[in-house]
Amino acid sequence: MGKKFLLAPDSFKESMTAKEVCEAMEIGIKRAIPDAECIHVPMADGGEGTVQSLIDATEGILIKKEVTGPLGTPVMAQYGILGDGKTGVIEMAAASGIHYVTKETKNPFITTTFGTGELIRDCMERGITDIILGIGGSATNDGGTGMAAALGYKFLDEDGNELPLGGGYLGELDKIDTSDVIPQLKHINILVASDVTNPLCGEEGASAVFGPQKGATPEMVQILDNNLRHYSKIVKEQLGIDMADVPGAGAAGGLGAGLIAFTTSTMKKGIEIVIEYTNLKEKMQNVDYCFTGEGGIDFQTKFGKAPYGVSQAAKSVNSAIKVIALAGYIGQDVETLYEEGFDAIFGIVPGAAGIDALLAQGKVNVARTSESIARLLK
Amino acid sequence: MGKKFLLAPDSFKESMTAKEVCEAMEIGIKRAIPDAECIHVPMADGGEGTVQSLIDATEGILIKKEVTGPLGTPVMAQYGILGDGKTGVIEMAAASGIHYVTKETKNPFITTTFGTGELIRDCMERGITDIILGIGGSATNDGGTGMAAALGYKFLDEDGNELPLGGGYLGELDKIDTSDVIPQLKHINILVASDVTNPLCGEEGASAVFGPQKGATPEMVQILDNNLRHYSKIVKEQLGIDMADVPGAGAAGGLGAGLIAFTTSTMKKGIEIVIEYTNLKEKMQNVDYCFTGEGGIDFQTKFGKAPYGVSQAAKSVNSAIKVIALAGYIGQDVETLYEEGFDAIFGIVPGAAGIDALLAQGKVNVARTSESIARLLK
Repeated sequence: MGKKFLLAPDSFKESMTAKEVCEAMEIGIKRAIPDAECIHVPMADGGEGTVQSLIDATEGILIKKEVTGPLGTPVMAQYGILGDGKTGVIEMAAASGIHYVTKETKNPFITTTFGTGELIRDCMERGITDIILGIGGSATNDGGTGMAAALGYKFLDEDGNELPLGGGYLGELDKIDTSDVIPQLKHINILVASDVTNPLCGEEGASAVFGPQKGATPEMVQILDNNLRHYSKIVKEQLGIDMADVPGAGAAGGLGAGLIAFTTSTMKKGIEIVIEYTNLKEKMQNVDYCFTGEGGIDFQTKFGKAPYGVSQAAKSVNSAIKVIALAGYIGQDVETLYEEGFDAIFGIVPGAAGIDALLAQGKVNVARTSESIARLLK
Repeated sequence: MGKKFLLAPDSFKESMTAKEVCEAMEIGIKRAIPDAECIHVPMADGGEGTVQSLIDATEGILIKKEVTGPLGTPVMAQYGILGDGKTGVIEMAAASGIHYVTKETKNPFITTTFGTGELIRDCMERGITDIILGIGGSATNDGGTGMAAALGYKFLDEDGNELPLGGGYLGELDKIDTSDVIPQLKHINILVASDVTNPLCGEEGASAVFGPQKGATPEMVQILDNNLRHYSKIVKEQLGIDMADVPGAGAAGGLGAGLIAFTTSTMKKGIEIVIEYTNLKEKMQNVDYCFTGEGGIDFQTKFGKAPYGVSQAAKSVNSAIKVIALAGYIGQDVETLYEEGFDAIFGIVPGAAGIDALLAQGKVNVARTSESIARLLK
């Protein structure tokens, strides 16, 4: 009887989607074991590639939608609807990501999550009630007020005028007007994929930790942090929600806090959500070998990366499943992963080469390495 | 009971000797399988590294000896005496190699194998009766006359004067004077390690095929080829030996021919000699896994490279021995080796990197990859 292989890699960033990695793995495995059964479960960890992998894993669809980018100008974003037809999957970076700003234009005073709110609204308009929202890679520090504004919340100064978009103006916040909030919003459940546990404010808060990479000078960090503190005070006073110290409130420039304040949401580790929605554990029944992988693997993989989640899932289903990881880059202290459910970890790189050449030849290298591994497992 | 691993890699050129590769493999294997039994058999294919590997495999010794380099100036060469105390092992390149000449000084009219003859004589003076002579990497095109001159042969012009050293003067050869040949030479058996089957002269001959890389212009190739033809005619007339069309006579600028004409020698593929003198097949008894490898592996590996010889030897001893190869560079059509006794082939490179960095970190990469492989074999 043919051996059963579950193929559950993350994408190899800038080289292959997770689905393409699965395909390359199967090509190699079947060269060695022609009657091998290969089950494809493209993985992700809630970060970049999550929409693509969840669509590929559930045979969902991709929606394109023009929304307001982080700088207020239009960008073409996309999000997914899973194969169940009722779950939307959004990466906030698709609307409000750091890749939309340049060294010259990045400015966390003005960048906004408004586009992310527009994607949520687009889901609602299609009758979607459950949304998976990955919140990595943001260009913003607005506490999620932009997202909320797109859903009907109004953030007013003491003269009753709406504040401009962006975290730089929240110090003027006087009143949150909820009278025009889209009524359906209360029927929406948002599952927030985030591995970040930072609070909203302070030394470990959004502005201090993530502000600098979004363009904040030390002086700006101070202002942004004060603004978010003021904002959370207003939210507490007017909405009765104390979000300042909730772990994860500081994720994505405080979008974590905004989701707590303005939506019905739960925050969970990205990889756990992906494992749940791909039915990974069910698919692991009767599997002999589990192949996983990612563009790069090192000791940090155990802090919530997809291959780690896959290795844990495999061992929880059946400790006899051998978990084998492939990577384009094998980094520091990779051996520590052998205590974390990994049985073997192989690089796919065939020799001295620059990164561009390697990114271009990923499929060939995954197939070749998978073949060699499978030949040892025959 | 512990699994038994035979470790028989070639050197990873410019990175590790074969012995060092064995050591790195054992480190990795033992991290995965602490009670593994590892037998080290450093390999070579008759080319560079053969002396070192045969010394390491037999616990022999290294001799340093100043001899005449290819350009007539002194060079510090070395050769080995195997652990049996009676077999010498010489790489002709150590005395007469192409690495001793530069782009400016390379000149196959004057380069000589005299130093190789001096190493043979040094062996004889130590009572050595059997010599393994690897003849790759020569800078010469002298038909082995330099080597013969070091052993007492005199090559005279029609005035009875000794010819200068080098293939450029053989057109003047009139007489070979054997009166001063070292008497013990006839008791010496030379086993010539060479994979080259070219004849001495003509289109497939030493001058035409290998002359250009030694600095011969098309005009020089013509003269060198004519000279070797004249030389072989004189040898045939005066010594009764017809060496011109013997396969391998054209190896090492015609040193192959000179060995036929002036010594008692047999030519054999390098890897076969190394397998024989390391007792590789005896050591393969009761082995479960055989690790081999080389700096680079590709489809050409099957044309006589060490890993190919090792794979063939393993399968001939016991087809159940799994042969696993490691390489720093995995080249074209490596999959074709799966029909040649290889079970699996893995690259050791951890990611995008330049060659210098990779050469420096070879041991770490071999150990890491060996560990992963051994973990699959547990």
